[in-house]
Amino acid sequence: MASAVADQTISIGELEDFCIRVLTSLGVGEDDARTTAKALVTTDTWGVYTHGTKLLRGYARRLRGGGLRNNLSPKIADEGAAWALVDGQSTLGQVTSTFATEVAIRKARQAGVGFVTVTNSCHFGAAGYYAWLAAKAGMIGLAMANDVPSVAAPGSRGPVLGSNPIAFSCPTAAGDPILLDMSIATVAGGKVFARCKRGEPIPPGWLVDDAGQPTQDGTLYPDRASLSPVGGHKGYGIGLLIEILAGVLSGAAVTKQVGSWLFGDMSAPTNHGAAFLAIDVSAIMTPSTFYERIAALISEIHAEPTAEGVASLMLPGEMEWRNRRQAESKGIALPADVIDSLQEAASESGQPFVF
Amino acid sequence: MASAVADQTISIGELEDFCIRVLTSLGVGEDDARTTAKALVTTDTWGVYTHGTKLLRGYARRLRGGGLRNNLSPKIADEGAAWALVDGQSTLGQVTSTFATEVAIRKARQAGVGFVTVTNSCHFGAAGYYAWLAAKAGMIGLAMANDVPSVAAPGSRGPVLGSNPIAFSCPTAAGDPILLDMSIATVAGGKVFARCKRGEPIPPGWLVDDAGQPTQDGTLYPDRASLSPVGGHKGYGIGLLIEILAGVLSGAAVTKQVGSWLFGDMSAPTNHGAAFLAIDVSAIMTPSTFYERIAALISEIHAEPTAEGVASLMLPGEMEWRNRRQAESKGIALPADVIDSLQEAASESGQPFVF
Repeated sequence: MASAVADQTISIGELEDFCIRVLTSLGVGEDDARTTAKALVTTDTWGVYTHGTKLLRGYARRLRGGGLRNNLSPKIADEGAAWALVDGQSTLGQVTSTFATEVAIRKARQAGVGFVTVTNSCHFGAAGYYAWLAAKAGMIGLAMANDVPSVAAPGSRGPVLGSNPIAFSCPTAAGDPILLDMSIATVAGGKVFARCKRGEPIPPGWLVDDAGQPTQDGTLYPDRASLSPVGGHKGYGIGLLIEILAGVLSGAAVTKQVGSWLFGDMSAPTNHGAAFLAIDVSAIMTPSTFYERIAALISEIHAEPTAEGVASLMLPGEMEWRNRRQAESKGIALPADVIDSLQEAASESGQPFVF
Repeated sequence: MASAVADQTISIGELEDFCIRVLTSLGVGEDDARTTAKALVTTDTWGVYTHGTKLLRGYARRLRGGGLRNNLSPKIADEGAAWALVDGQSTLGQVTSTFATEVAIRKARQAGVGFVTVTNSCHFGAAGYYAWLAAKAGMIGLAMANDVPSVAAPGSRGPVLGSNPIAFSCPTAAGDPILLDMSIATVAGGKVFARCKRGEPIPPGWLVDDAGQPTQDGTLYPDRASLSPVGGHKGYGIGLLIEILAGVLSGAAVTKQVGSWLFGDMSAPTNHGAAFLAIDVSAIMTPSTFYERIAALISEIHAEPTAEGVASLMLPGEMEWRNRRQAESKGIALPADVIDSLQEAASESGQPFVF
């Protein structure tokens, strides 16, 4: 196996096939393995390597431990005209979330809007992937999930809410869908680790220590510091909305009851919650009118005067779609940490990974 | 008329009656006047004086100018099982938004979820009021609107999106509803003005000048500076979602096409857009279970260890409900600027306002 070199790449198809091989070797059905592989590899093509195939190793360990089930499928536990409750049955978060998104799309096709809340899920990777699935179907999509607490609330000494990702995507006629994917923290914990590793200071505003005071000592995170909520009470408040829609309303675990998919007991379900909303554009507005109006908004933003050194304002997702086209034409240039993780997943599963 | 003194108060009923008198004197029907008064006065009781009865003077001028219509009513322009498009017909934003929220609640009662997008609205005051109306009906409510651009995008030299308020409210069984109401700016423009007036410096991170650089010169705002988006690309991205749901999808004015309700041509409709979502808790989960789960989450947050000087973590809205109880028992202690504005509204409308 070659070591990581920046100009080495792997094709989308090869990487998907590898993920499928690992997952099927652990008893995951072919379709579910493909669904998961598509979510992980698409996320890598966006350049969001923290939430792509790097996760495979952990998911594989959890499948081996039994905390993720390979012999069950997500199912609709209850439903109405415009909503459903999906029970993920502790299958892979990507399988459950793709299923739930498809249910939301189907409901929206019938009722104009579809809302799906999910229990017994697991870590679902990039929220943006599911929002984008809705956009591909001509819908405005939202996706969100709760997670193990890592983010402080204003005035707290410790973490109160998870990173609680939220994403939205909006379809366009000609160009790329708008795609925002964010957590409620000022910055991701991974950025704190990266700065520490490089010996760089932590900027003010990123972390709160265990006395509830701002700190720039990155070595305290995560044991004695938590991530600050973006915009203080605003990030905290949005995080709480996500906790309610994804966790409380679904019957899933809430805040400290959510299991850590990476560090928790590998034999126990994490019981993450999630929620998905799809709004069918074509039900509400003639699609051509909607697409003209979105195109006008995008053009207006692109035509805005910019600060020195800024070529053009970007729409959310614009950088990710550029990365994706690069990945499609030249393959994915996986970072070293992702390659290491994939190689471990390969050796632990007895599957070859040649990079 | 007495001048403003801190310990002077006015009762909720008196203030509502005054608003109703002013509005009916301008040809607004009794019901619509009451609806508007309730929205404005409730907002004052929360202590959110920037979005309460202070707005009455401007609305009255716009009614007099004809940009707000006193002889029309909001109507459903189109609808489906779980959604509706409401045409506000340039009536008061509070009338249109209350109507639209009621439609969203009705849809949610039938389909589990109700989404309403609104065109031909005007400034609607506090988004939180409409989210709370949904919570009063046992629903999780969201409310949002677009507005005249005042907030920069990352890398822009000028404002790109409006303050684009978004609110959510969640019912509880025993206590107050959770109630978040926020704009996508780091801080409200009013706070910049207040600091300037007091001769205080503007903290870093609030403003962006017309070269697209951070500035602490508050005198530049709003002509040569714009508000920074909260959390940079995160606030910008959420603002764009709101612009799409409230503006693009409704057919309302978008960004620079939105009229200024306060400074624009008083004879022209502003054509603000808005959007409302109601999720019927009782459709998805047994209400007693939901309320137990929400109570547990609130208790958990209240029991969190706090930083020095912080008595207890607060839920969004907690301070506002304390203010409201104070207003209910002792009356509303209106700030001087609100009293001035109400006195002008009184004299311009020929209605007595005795404070």
